[in-house]
Amino acid sequence: MLIKIMQNVLAENAKMAGEIRDLLKQKKILMINLISSPGSGKTSLLEKTLPFLKAKYRVAVIEGDVETDKDAKRLENSNVPIALINTSGACHLESVSIEKAFSVLDLDNLDIIFVENVGNLVCPAEFDIGEDMKVALVSTPEGDDKPSKYPLLFREASLAILNKIDLLQHVDFNLNNFSADVQELNPNLSIIKMSCRTGEGLQDWFNWLETKIASKQRVMKN
Amino acid sequence: MLIKIMQNVLAENAKMAGEIRDLLKQKKILMINLISSPGSGKTSLLEKTLPFLKAKYRVAVIEGDVETDKDAKRLENSNVPIALINTSGACHLESVSIEKAFSVLDLDNLDIIFVENVGNLVCPAEFDIGEDMKVALVSTPEGDDKPSKYPLLFREASLAILNKIDLLQHVDFNLNNFSADVQELNPNLSIIKMSCRTGEGLQDWFNWLETKIASKQRVMKN
Repeated sequence: MLIKIMQNVLAENAKMAGEIRDLLKQKKILMINLISSPGSGKTSLLEKTLPFLKAKYRVAVIEGDVETDKDAKRLENSNVPIALINTSGACHLESVSIEKAFSVLDLDNLDIIFVENVGNLVCPAEFDIGEDMKVALVSTPEGDDKPSKYPLLFREASLAILNKIDLLQHVDFNLNNFSADVQELNPNLSIIKMSCRTGEGLQDWFNWLETKIASKQRVMKN
Repeated sequence: MLIKIMQNVLAENAKMAGEIRDLLKQKKILMINLISSPGSGKTSLLEKTLPFLKAKYRVAVIEGDVETDKDAKRLENSNVPIALINTSGACHLESVSIEKAFSVLDLDNLDIIFVENVGNLVCPAEFDIGEDMKVALVSTPEGDDKPSKYPLLFREASLAILNKIDLLQHVDFNLNNFSADVQELNPNLSIIKMSCRTGEGLQDWFNWLETKIASKQRVMKN
């Protein structure tokens, strides 16, 4: 019976995700679903990304957190609209959370929305929230086995970011094993090596985002 | 309706957890539920702990993983019984997983069972699996804000291990903030600073475990 309930939950979630995706297409907004373990650097990445992007684009953030506003507060200085969703104990965001967040965002004046999902490699990969693409973020101290241990995320992702590359010499992380596992799970998945601390890789990420924003807006103009 | 279903799931889980706890009491087995983010070092900790403990005690491991046997394989060299539970996409272990694992372990010949839960700070803290105590493991690269962002685990835990202390000088981690947050959430929670790489803190952990094993066995002899 529980499996049936879970199937119903996922089916309802997928239906609403489809509606969200249609709305984003109509409004020409790119939505990126950022997924990682706790402490891999999702918020740090946004701290670096928002100031760069907002000079050219209209940006907002949907901040998913179990129960605090700590990450939202870290992003306040960026002066972009932030919709905070507390999941009250749930380990992932669902489409219904995104619908709620949309009610406080001005969708007629946005080019891109970042969703910072709850820090977790499992369930956030299972729940479609209507995003254009998922970005998987992992960091070197977590070890090179994360893709093979949490394969769904890497199959679903459109980009993998390997953060904390500045710590590579201090941790047990085999870059070749990591790349080979990613390649096996998802042959088209690019990896950007990054350090939010030193700035390495940020420009590649900005370029990737700009291409995706342009592509979304171009499709709509046709 | 979903809330009611979740309440039922938790109630059924808690009932079975109670039965597991009774059985462990009767068999004089200490069961430790290890909870952390992906990549904080649960398996590394067990790799260091099993060789030490098994010289004196009868040890087994219940290994929870989403879908692979990677961690179980890393522990094979330890030559202790390992029961692997694949959760097939679920982000945490439940009591029913422990009951299944018990069916392949010889409970009449064990002093201590380690449960390596699925790498996740949220749901594993919410599901009682009949353990004697939860041990929360965090690592310095994850940042000092983890206790305040995932408070339930730190309220529930009987010990916090701060791993990868050897990386402290390379990461943004304020030890005073971390300790103060832990203290506020759970004034009785001890913190062991550890590096599974260098061995720092391992002896404190072994001492803690030996005290708990002795205490469990003593209670039963009275």
